Amino acid sequence: MVVGGTHGNERNAPWLLEFWRSQPKDLASQGLGLALVLGNPGAHAANRRYLERDLNRSFDPALGARTSTGQAELVRARELLDQFGPAGLEPCSVVLDLHSTTSSMGNSLVVYGRRPADLALAAGIQGQLGLPIYLHEADGAQTGFLVERWPCGLVIEVGPVPQGVLQSQICRQTQLGVEAALAVLADAADGVLCLPNQLVVHRHLASVDVPRHGDGSPAGCIHPQRQGRDWQPMGLGEALFIDASGQTLAYGPPAGLEHEVVWPVFINEAAYGEKGIAMSLTRRECWPLEASWGEELAALAKVLERQRPVR
Amino acid sequence: MVVGGTHGNERNAPWLLEFWRSQPKDLASQGLGLALVLGNPGAHAANRRYLERDLNRSFDPALGARTSTGQAELVRARELLDQFGPAGLEPCSVVLDLHSTTSSMGNSLVVYGRRPADLALAAGIQGQLGLPIYLHEADGAQTGFLVERWPCGLVIEVGPVPQGVLQSQICRQTQLGVEAALAVLADAADGVLCLPNQLVVHRHLASVDVPRHGDGSPAGCIHPQRQGRDWQPMGLGEALFIDASGQTLAYGPPAGLEHEVVWPVFINEAAYGEKGIAMSLTRRECWPLEASWGEELAALAKVLERQRPVR
Repeated sequence: MVVGGTHGNERNAPWLLEFWRSQPKDLASQGLGLALVLGNPGAHAANRRYLERDLNRSFDPALGARTSTGQAELVRARELLDQFGPAGLEPCSVVLDLHSTTSSMGNSLVVYGRRPADLALAAGIQGQLGLPIYLHEADGAQTGFLVERWPCGLVIEVGPVPQGVLQSQICRQTQLGVEAALAVLADAADGVLCLPNQLVVHRHLASVDVPRHGDGSPAGCIHPQRQGRDWQPMGLGEALFIDASGQTLAYGPPAGLEHEVVWPVFINEAAYGEKGIAMSLTRRECWPLEASWGEELAALAKVLERQRPVR
Repeated sequence: MVVGGTHGNERNAPWLLEFWRSQPKDLASQGLGLALVLGNPGAHAANRRYLERDLNRSFDPALGARTSTGQAELVRARELLDQFGPAGLEPCSVVLDLHSTTSSMGNSLVVYGRRPADLALAAGIQGQLGLPIYLHEADGAQTGFLVERWPCGLVIEVGPVPQGVLQSQICRQTQLGVEAALAVLADAADGVLCLPNQLVVHRHLASVDVPRHGDGSPAGCIHPQRQGRDWQPMGLGEALFIDASGQTLAYGPPAGLEHEVVWPVFINEAAYGEKGIAMSLTRRECWPLEASWGEELAALAKVLERQRPVR
C-alpha cells in the first residue's frame, strides 16, 4: 500500500498518486502490485491536516472502541484497516506512508520502533539514496501511527514545503524515495536482497517546546541559526530560540542528556505547534546490519504480488 | 493603525503585535499614536486564513449590505471600520496591514491603485530599505482590500514562510518595514519629508493559473526553475510549469502581453490556489516622483498624534 494525504493539507503525495493512477508506467513499480490510497479524503477535500483528530495518531488499537470524539478519523482508520490491513479485503503486507513537512528534513525516512523488516527496508533505501532516518521510539506522548498496524512500513518525509503547496522538487524527491523502497521490496521478493553493512539512525531522545508565556502563547521562536538546520548536531550553549526583542536563548539539555550532542529533527514543523513540539532531539547511531532483518523482510516480501518476470 | 492577522494562519505579525503591546519601547514608533489591531481574531484562534470568506476581500463598500454568506468576515470588516475607520470611534488616517506569504517575496510592499499618499509612503519606505513594490490595480477579480477603506495605507508582505509558522527572520523583516513606514509618516507629520527622485513599481498586468485537468485538479505545478524566483524577469519560452511526468510547459504570454518581459510575483502562494492564481505578472516601471504625492501625505500626516517633541 502506498498512502498519501494521511494529512489533508500535504498536497504533493496525493498529486503523485493521481498521476501514477493515470500513468502507471511513470512509476518504476518493479511489477509489484500496489494499492494507491488517499489517506484522509475528507481532510484532503478541506485542505486541512485533519477534520477532528490527527489520522496519523489514530491507529492505536486501544482507540478502536472510542467513538465519542474524533469520530471521522477513527472511522477512517478502521476503514483503511478493514480494506488494506493484513486481515483486510485487499490485504497489504507493506505500507509506505508519504508525508511532507515545513521542516527542512530534505528527503528522509521515519521508522517507528525496531521491527526487523522495517529496519531492513530502511537500510535498503539508505543504501541506495543515502536518506537520513529518524527512529521514533519510546515516546508515550506520540502514538497510534498508521504504519505500525501493518507488518512492515515506514514514512517517507520530505521538506521543507508549506502546507497546501505543490512543489515539483518535493514530488520528485518523494517519487525517488518510493521507487527506492519498491526496488528493495522487489529484491527481497526475488531473494536477491543486498543490504549495506550498517544502518545510520537518528534515534528519538526527547522533544522540546518553544518557551511559552503563562497563557500558552509562544515567548520565543526558533533561532535563525537553528532554523532550517535539521539533521545537524547541536551542543550545549548553542543558539536555540530567540525572543521578539532579539534575545537569544541557548540550548540547555533536558535531564539525562547533559553530556550528549544531539541532532534536532522536525524543527518548526507547522503542525507540531499544537502538540507542543518545536523540534525533536535525536542521537546519531551507526548500527551493524543484522542478518535476521533481511530474512524477515524477505519472508514478508515473498507474498507480494509480482507481475514482472522473475529475474 | 497597524493590523496583523488579517489572515488567521499568518502568525508572525500577530506575534509582533503582542510583543509591541507588552514592550512598546521595542518598536521605534517615532512617537506616533498607534492602534495595534488583530485583524481577524476568530480566524487567528482557528489558525485558518478565514472562517467564512477572505477578510481582505471583504472591504468592498458594495458588500456592506450583504449578510447572507460570509457573515463572520463581513461583520468583522464593519467592526474595524466602525472602530478605526476614518469616521470611527478611534479614527486612524493611515493603515499598515502586515501579511506573510509562502511565496519568495522577501520583504516587500503592496499598494492598491495610485492614491498619491500611498505612493509617497511607499516611495519613502523604498528610499530607506529598497523594498520592491507590487502595484495592484485593474484587477476586477480581486477587490475589497482592507487598506482601500482608509485614506492612506499599504500592505507589508514578507515571505517565504509556511502558513502557521513563526520565523524570527520574517518577524525581523516585518518590524523593519513597519519602522521604516513610521519614520516616513513622522517626517511627513513634521514637515521634513524627503523622498527619493523616483519610484520603482511592479505594476499588475494579469494573473495566471496552473494548467488544470477537466475536473479542476492541477495538471502541473510551478517549474523548479521558476519556483522561488519572484521579482525576477521572465520572457517568452522560459520554463514556467512542469507536469508530474517531468514535461516542461514554457511561458506563453497572455493576449496583449506578447512583447513584454514580465516580472512574476506571488509565485505559488498557498492561499491563492483556490483563487486560481499560480502567480501574477507585472511590468517593472520607474516613475519620477510627483511633488503632489508628498504634499498629500503631509496633509494627511498633520493630524497624526505625536507624543514626541517636534524636531
